[in-house]
Amino acid sequence: MMSDFSYQLHNVDGAARRGTVTTPHGTIETPAFMPVGTAATVKGMFTDSVQQTGAEILLGNTYHLMLRPGAERIASLGGLHRFMNWDKPILTDSGGFQVMSLSKLRKITEEGVRFQSHIDGGSYNLTPERSMEIQSLLGSDIQMAFDECTPHPATHEVAEQSMELSMRWAKRSSDAFDRYSAPGQALFGIVQGSVYEDLRVRSVEALMEIDFPGLAVGGLAVGEGQDVMFDVLDFTVPHLPASKPRYLMGVGTPLDLLGAVERGIDMFDCVMPTRSGRHGQAFTFDGKLNLKNARFKDDPTPLDEHSTCPACRDYSKAYLHHLVRCGELLASMLVSWANVHFYQELMGQMRLAIEEQRFAAYAKDFRARYQVKP
Amino acid sequence: MMSDFSYQLHNVDGAARRGTVTTPHGTIETPAFMPVGTAATVKGMFTDSVQQTGAEILLGNTYHLMLRPGAERIASLGGLHRFMNWDKPILTDSGGFQVMSLSKLRKITEEGVRFQSHIDGGSYNLTPERSMEIQSLLGSDIQMAFDECTPHPATHEVAEQSMELSMRWAKRSSDAFDRYSAPGQALFGIVQGSVYEDLRVRSVEALMEIDFPGLAVGGLAVGEGQDVMFDVLDFTVPHLPASKPRYLMGVGTPLDLLGAVERGIDMFDCVMPTRSGRHGQAFTFDGKLNLKNARFKDDPTPLDEHSTCPACRDYSKAYLHHLVRCGELLASMLVSWANVHFYQELMGQMRLAIEEQRFAAYAKDFRARYQVKP
Repeated sequence: MMSDFSYQLHNVDGAARRGTVTTPHGTIETPAFMPVGTAATVKGMFTDSVQQTGAEILLGNTYHLMLRPGAERIASLGGLHRFMNWDKPILTDSGGFQVMSLSKLRKITEEGVRFQSHIDGGSYNLTPERSMEIQSLLGSDIQMAFDECTPHPATHEVAEQSMELSMRWAKRSSDAFDRYSAPGQALFGIVQGSVYEDLRVRSVEALMEIDFPGLAVGGLAVGEGQDVMFDVLDFTVPHLPASKPRYLMGVGTPLDLLGAVERGIDMFDCVMPTRSGRHGQAFTFDGKLNLKNARFKDDPTPLDEHSTCPACRDYSKAYLHHLVRCGELLASMLVSWANVHFYQELMGQMRLAIEEQRFAAYAKDFRARYQVKP
Repeated sequence: MMSDFSYQLHNVDGAARRGTVTTPHGTIETPAFMPVGTAATVKGMFTDSVQQTGAEILLGNTYHLMLRPGAERIASLGGLHRFMNWDKPILTDSGGFQVMSLSKLRKITEEGVRFQSHIDGGSYNLTPERSMEIQSLLGSDIQMAFDECTPHPATHEVAEQSMELSMRWAKRSSDAFDRYSAPGQALFGIVQGSVYEDLRVRSVEALMEIDFPGLAVGGLAVGEGQDVMFDVLDFTVPHLPASKPRYLMGVGTPLDLLGAVERGIDMFDCVMPTRSGRHGQAFTFDGKLNLKNARFKDDPTPLDEHSTCPACRDYSKAYLHHLVRCGELLASMLVSWANVHFYQELMGQMRLAIEEQRFAAYAKDFRARYQVKP
């Protein structure tokens, strides 16, 4: 009943790809967006609602979960799927990114990273081997190699050293994954190299030697801007093998997703739909709305009257505005749900457009309609 | 299709009563507990989930809604039911209690209360007439007479003057209700008189002259303690007519509800299940649990494995403990849901026990099992 990891590419339209990823907990139609379940919860959402949006895979954060409640504890409680009541696929990151962005007093050595928890100041080690052990304890279907997230901006020299360290860690990750993982699970490698084409190409080559079943593009969405991000994709993605899924980590806005799918990316994750939801910002096909704005206080229309999503369909903007103004929990709950639904609907529309060989026209129409409003 | 307000008493068991209240938006089996939807939302819950718990009526707060988003605005958006996406009965309070407990710079005159909003300091008037107008703009099925919530403790003299003012306001409320209300809606009178039997009896007599279709016992659960509250019920409830529903406002704990049903009360409202839920305190038939407590960190059992409520059944206490510790929105969402479900289940069990003429035995069993744990 449990299937091994695989990727099937159905068709391409320009560089955009339509495929299916198979994992032990089910299949994922790609291009796919993964809502982020940081601390074993997609913030403000029931897993039922997440599933109702069409999401087929969630992301869990190794850094957060190793600190609270602890990977061994989750394992003893039956694994992350059971712990958070989600029986579809889960991808976990390696912890590398959050160690850099959240922890205090980091010390990076060849061995790994020693850091202090941002929660209680406790000391922890994270190495490729420990990251693999944790991800296997969590029981995630798709695991990520432990890497160093190269700071941005970085000189060519710094980026090169960082990428080479990540590639040595990728090999150690792969070896440790073979020891710790359960049948059918997969480990993805992560391409690093900052904004430098030669480094990105060398990174892809190093990962290809290890033969990961999927490859991620890392080190982007860290402040470099959309133009630079697309440039990096333009010179990196063509080097990635067509036979493996491609995951752009931590991205992004609807227009980021559109441009990255256009360049051949298959998978994404981002906290944006839920984080924006908690701030009263709603994504719609007409653009992003700040529901706190007084122009909504008497607006009887829902976010999307034709939606299958109750949060988009059953509540007026005036009501959402009221909830946001009052700081009500239900504001976060409804707008996060509506946003995750919007992201899934966007992915579904892109998948269909690729299948029907009209992705360029779809992208043009989407860009013409979608506006970011103040 | 819309039914007029009525109350049918099915049977009694001791002083406990089993009945049905009919309103324009549907029927309510009594004894009934009404979750509180303060600012047009039961905090942390979708209305779907509220309905799934078995709740048949919600309470809305006139004070909160008149300040934000405003009663006229809710009316122009189709009324409170539509605004908050709840098509079952709604009861609104008069605003009197919150004016006393929340607002600043109150001035009470024969005419009514002038006060400053606790939100923005703006000045407002609330009179019996304005309270009735607001409640009719909201479109609530059961409306409450505007009264003064007598402070506790109060001397007999202060309590008498306060009660007499409330009775004059009750008459003005009734007259205004006749002008503003829609067909089928009902206005309840509120018995005041603090802890004094003679005043409570005189208050009942005054309200009977106005002939309200339902009567509430007000001015309790304000710090007097359970013993005093039950004493007041003991000498007040026997004076209430059997033909009208009896509503004990702002009550209470599970043991409060049990003791009050035992004394002939039919309706309750309280923020306790949702407020406790937001603080990680879960009600179960074995008592109240503080989920933040470390003894739950490895507990794989759910709050109630046999429950029909997903929040009670599908998540381990270890998971709930983790969410509470992390301050996750989902902690508030799940524990509030579980608590409202528990309250409804308790009411359902009490209703069945009355029907089957075994309420005393039920109450004894419940008290033996239920514990309030530190």
